[in-house]
Amino acid sequence: MTAIPSERAVPERSAGLPAVERRAVLPAGFRAGGMSAGIKASGRPDLAVVLTTAGPAAAAAVFTPNTFAAAPVRLSRAHLAATSGDDRGGFGWAEAIISTSGSANAATGPDGDADQREVARLLATATGVAEDRTLHLSTGIIGTRLPLAKVDAGLRVLVPAASPEDAGLGAAAEALRTTDSVTKVATTVVTLPGATGPAVQVTVSGIAKGVGMIHPRMATMLSIVLTDADVDPATLWGLLRPAAARTWDQLSVDGDTSTNDTVFVLASATARNATLVPGTPGAAALGAAIEAVARDLARQQAADGEGAATLITAAVSGARDDADARAVARSVISSSLVKAAAHGRDPNWGRIAGAAGNARLADAAVLEAAGLTPEDAVGRAGTPAELDPGRLRIEIAGHLVFDGRQGGPVRFDRAVVRQAMAAPEVVFGLDLGLGAGTGEAFGCDLTEAYVIENSEYTT
Amino acid sequence: MTAIPSERAVPERSAGLPAVERRAVLPAGFRAGGMSAGIKASGRPDLAVVLTTAGPAAAAAVFTPNTFAAAPVRLSRAHLAATSGDDRGGFGWAEAIISTSGSANAATGPDGDADQREVARLLATATGVAEDRTLHLSTGIIGTRLPLAKVDAGLRVLVPAASPEDAGLGAAAEALRTTDSVTKVATTVVTLPGATGPAVQVTVSGIAKGVGMIHPRMATMLSIVLTDADVDPATLWGLLRPAAARTWDQLSVDGDTSTNDTVFVLASATARNATLVPGTPGAAALGAAIEAVARDLARQQAADGEGAATLITAAVSGARDDADARAVARSVISSSLVKAAAHGRDPNWGRIAGAAGNARLADAAVLEAAGLTPEDAVGRAGTPAELDPGRLRIEIAGHLVFDGRQGGPVRFDRAVVRQAMAAPEVVFGLDLGLGAGTGEAFGCDLTEAYVIENSEYTT
Repeated sequence: MTAIPSERAVPERSAGLPAVERRAVLPAGFRAGGMSAGIKASGRPDLAVVLTTAGPAAAAAVFTPNTFAAAPVRLSRAHLAATSGDDRGGFGWAEAIISTSGSANAATGPDGDADQREVARLLATATGVAEDRTLHLSTGIIGTRLPLAKVDAGLRVLVPAASPEDAGLGAAAEALRTTDSVTKVATTVVTLPGATGPAVQVTVSGIAKGVGMIHPRMATMLSIVLTDADVDPATLWGLLRPAAARTWDQLSVDGDTSTNDTVFVLASATARNATLVPGTPGAAALGAAIEAVARDLARQQAADGEGAATLITAAVSGARDDADARAVARSVISSSLVKAAAHGRDPNWGRIAGAAGNARLADAAVLEAAGLTPEDAVGRAGTPAELDPGRLRIEIAGHLVFDGRQGGPVRFDRAVVRQAMAAPEVVFGLDLGLGAGTGEAFGCDLTEAYVIENSEYTT
Repeated sequence: MTAIPSERAVPERSAGLPAVERRAVLPAGFRAGGMSAGIKASGRPDLAVVLTTAGPAAAAAVFTPNTFAAAPVRLSRAHLAATSGDDRGGFGWAEAIISTSGSANAATGPDGDADQREVARLLATATGVAEDRTLHLSTGIIGTRLPLAKVDAGLRVLVPAASPEDAGLGAAAEALRTTDSVTKVATTVVTLPGATGPAVQVTVSGIAKGVGMIHPRMATMLSIVLTDADVDPATLWGLLRPAAARTWDQLSVDGDTSTNDTVFVLASATARNATLVPGTPGAAALGAAIEAVARDLARQQAADGEGAATLITAAVSGARDDADARAVARSVISSSLVKAAAHGRDPNWGRIAGAAGNARLADAAVLEAAGLTPEDAVGRAGTPAELDPGRLRIEIAGHLVFDGRQGGPVRFDRAVVRQAMAAPEVVFGLDLGLGAGTGEAFGCDLTEAYVIENSEYTT
């Protein structure tokens, strides 16, 4: 089911994270399922639900920064704000998630908002939970209306059938897919201090779709991460935001951010861990588990990028700080020239250096989510990352090809490096020689298939 | 010689600019030439000079923001700072420009800097001007050293032969090229108040190369703009910066900024216009002429983008302000999904809306160059452009396809719009319905040829 090996020699950030297995594991306190409700013309699975079995779960979310956020994004934000009283809409309480594939319910105006509210009503009716404890995911064609009758009929079957077994989460993962070539799942287990006695093990398991936008107008990356940990919503959000900033925000297939991108994390609190206080080892352990799952899902998404043959990882060390390192890594994997060179197995360090030289820090929202103070985030947003050509070292697939401290280009055996670039994953390593900052980013090669798939006209 | 018609129905920004002709006209006070000096293995023209005939010319420049600026960029900045005493390196005095094609002298370390200083010495010797009154352009392969002996031998022939006729500038334009499929030239004439009597006509003529990065490791956009106007260096820089911000900074072929990008404007002061004071109609007229030439060269560069078959223009109106409008326009023409859809003649308004929703304002340096106050530039850099889906209108090649004020998607005849998209230029018009801000951006479609050309391995 997996396109690439789960663990490879990518340094730094992954070092502190727990190991991940690529299987769907349903933590205690949830049931889930997926089915074909007829939203997709193909008849493939297109409706998924995740439901709590032990009352409200703590919920945290990150949403697309696209100004044209789709109706499900807007409604989910409103529901989180309503259940938490925090108007940022990033955390709250939830008892049910619904995902529809085939129609994005984006750019559908007030009618689309009304449709999504009707989906909430149908889900609330089918499950018996309050409407504002429902969360919504959607992906598919932009500008088409949701087929409400099909959603209604599907929920009447799917909600009673949703399973507390792992297979239920696997079925939900299948139903998230649009044109993904593989189903994307990742699970880890970490140990947390117990509430009343010995340490307890908690599970963090995620499913995701994207980014394989093969069908024109289809886009979106969606993910649901579930855990049995006991954690309050605001703390959960505080763990999710930096994890997402270091993983999903460092993922690019083609630089386009969809109208529907959403990640939900739900915590059922069925594990009897001690209260998780931000800044303590317990909270850090749960954050690392969420980040490990997010990172692995992001890597699966990059590897499955449309038309992609190669997962590209940029691993940056020696930066002034982590924000600079992430900016450089993101710039490298986002460069069309680097992506095309990767496709051609061309050890073209000039393009890598050029892309690094173009690195600009992320916008203030991402920088703040990653842990910068609000003042630093605003002050540094969009500014160049610090670089010194005389200190930069570049490795391609483990081979040193440029060393600014030795005057620049280094002699290397092109045939050997080209052979190394034929692997399913190619790591571009950059050491900036300036500080202790590290960061990584994930992308894919640019192929003729990408262009063909995205330029074919379809009705 | 031109790939696209010079004038088309692109609204707003072009409306206030003088008409442009696509021919090289050498203003009084300059001579120029180009030749094959053997830098390129192909034997094509690769060495160009522009020399003043009436002493020092006022000079202004904009350079690549890439942190890995090449040796010619660094040396030119230093020379401008030396001749003006202004350490920003954006304006000063110059008597000679040299351009070498075939080797970029980028990522060559201290040796490359020494090489470029030797080029300055050779040019100073050949012309009799001071070394710090030379300016330098270079384009070609990254990481290779300049062949100094060939440059020396070439200058000994070229400097005496440089011509004050228009053909001399045409020859220089030819020698700027690397893989450009056409030579890029543009000229306009404007009337300025006379110094002592009647109004005078001044010429503004530009040559450019790029962006046709067909050969791996070859990149760069270079331009030289010449005028006989009498204008001091700081004022000239003050006219160039906003003109470049509205034109070249709105140009994207593949999102990569090269290590060598440079624009030089030289003013010979042979025209007897009245002193140009910033903010007066005379200065505005010269600024409009520079912008008109810059805009047309940028459009030629976009149309000649690697593998490109179609020039894409995004014309945005109704924005909160011009900075927002430019951000939205740039986001649309930079989207790989929009570019691929243009290639496939797919009237895919969903991708256009999605790309608009991703628009983020430029970095502070560009915003300040465009006229924002330093405080506004820092505060707004990287922030989202203001958009309201309920007010957005989208036109493709003159056909309304989306109207948020009518609920969103509009019925249109796909066959008709597809036919209109078969033109050499396709305009995506977006009216944001929020204010009076306008802006435009220029790009090209994304084709299989781009990927093939950039992924082929070459030694």
